[in-house]
Amino acid sequence: MELALAARLPPADAIPGRLHQAMRYSVLGGGKRVRAALVFATARTVGLTESTVEAAACAIELVHAYSLVHDDLPAMDDDDLRRGRPTCHKAYDEATALLVGDALQTLAFQVLAGDPSLPSSPAIRLRLIALLAEASGTAGMAGGQAVDLAAQGRRLDLAQVEDMHARKTGALIRVSVLMAAACVASADPAVTAALTDFANPIGLAFQIQDDLLDVLGDASTLGKATGADQARSKPTHPSIIGIEASQARVRLLHDQALAALVPFGLRAEPLRSLADWLLNRSF
Amino acid sequence: MELALAARLPPADAIPGRLHQAMRYSVLGGGKRVRAALVFATARTVGLTESTVEAAACAIELVHAYSLVHDDLPAMDDDDLRRGRPTCHKAYDEATALLVGDALQTLAFQVLAGDPSLPSSPAIRLRLIALLAEASGTAGMAGGQAVDLAAQGRRLDLAQVEDMHARKTGALIRVSVLMAAACVASADPAVTAALTDFANPIGLAFQIQDDLLDVLGDASTLGKATGADQARSKPTHPSIIGIEASQARVRLLHDQALAALVPFGLRAEPLRSLADWLLNRSF
Repeated sequence: MELALAARLPPADAIPGRLHQAMRYSVLGGGKRVRAALVFATARTVGLTESTVEAAACAIELVHAYSLVHDDLPAMDDDDLRRGRPTCHKAYDEATALLVGDALQTLAFQVLAGDPSLPSSPAIRLRLIALLAEASGTAGMAGGQAVDLAAQGRRLDLAQVEDMHARKTGALIRVSVLMAAACVASADPAVTAALTDFANPIGLAFQIQDDLLDVLGDASTLGKATGADQARSKPTHPSIIGIEASQARVRLLHDQALAALVPFGLRAEPLRSLADWLLNRSF
Repeated sequence: MELALAARLPPADAIPGRLHQAMRYSVLGGGKRVRAALVFATARTVGLTESTVEAAACAIELVHAYSLVHDDLPAMDDDDLRRGRPTCHKAYDEATALLVGDALQTLAFQVLAGDPSLPSSPAIRLRLIALLAEASGTAGMAGGQAVDLAAQGRRLDLAQVEDMHARKTGALIRVSVLMAAACVASADPAVTAALTDFANPIGLAFQIQDDLLDVLGDASTLGKATGADQARSKPTHPSIIGIEASQARVRLLHDQALAALVPFGLRAEPLRSLADWLLNRSF
């Protein structure tokens, strides 16, 4: 993924060099690449090669990276550390970080529209663009951020928190699975439905696990500060139902996700082991 | 255009309401709609109806609106007034303005991917998306912003300033013409080349006229503060070659643009009158 992303980012020595360098700094700084891994594991499950979906994985990671750069800005979460390094606006400056996020989003759609490694069918590419746009916009990630902003310091019930997570992180997790499936020339609605039933609980479980790590995790392993949610009075599963009930909810969602993979048999093994890793991770 | 944009923006009463309201506030606050007008005038010139290109015009205006919302933020130009009203971050807050820009960009690509009024050909839609992404990204608008940031307080020569303008405003002006032309089922390369020869000088002339209005214009007519470029030591045509030479450059570019329209005969009349208006405007 590092190589695949590096090849699609503008060169650091092309004008405007500082912007390109800051984009590369923000995208190529490591990270778990959970969304890319979901794209590749889903590709295996539906019988596609990894190279067919590589550009789709890059587009999703670019959108994810843009959202992190903007979320870290002083006007949002005001974070200094990301993946163990200074955040983009700390390493560069706020104006550059703003443009980095903007340009990374644009690049994601540019990759889907033009990357030669994707299926050449314009209809498939268009479907990928529509899926990514819906997952990123106000019905998805950006909308979840807005709900999150409005929620800080307020009391939300569990259903409201889960709705917020479904948008904020769930939408991009789900679309990672759906975009890989959409690369099949004649996508089977039953396959898409089963994969959606896998992706929805995984997306929520991933976010609860993230919130648990913010309480229980180790800052040096995570590469970012812990305790941030509590400091900001963010409503999370641990803050509403407690740590043990949150861990139980993660296990239940994990079982639901795996149940949706039964029809795929052994072909879904990469998705199963990814799900296991995601929900037992310590970073 | 107000109705066309209003119909494509998320409803103000849908969750997240505050984000949707801020998006509508930022997009529907008037403006000259120069880019949309170029789309419609080009459509006439290449024999398309206005309804065929309406969604393309909306997508470009959405990208333009996103760039204004982000440019007005304190980390960039720190402007309080836009189109005679408080800027988005003043009327709402900085975090919301950040998300407004992000979500407007996403919406632009979503419109091009899915709007039913556009030509149904996936190949045409994909071409529109590729054109808009290229014009918006680091080779275009966002790149121009980065060059502009780097240039503040530095001395640039005229060629460097014109390169910056070609990206910052020129790219989106040019793509307005090219996207309308791309809606023709079998686009003629000679037509595209002639329209590019029209759009490039118009884009530059438009920006010089903007910079002249910043020196000579009236704040109440413009709906924004004047003298801002000088206060920020921004290199512009008036600051480098003076007012009279800048006005002469506008006239020359205008004549170059009109010369490119000769092959279209009377069909290019809407583009001609738009060019005349653009370069004689006082707001």
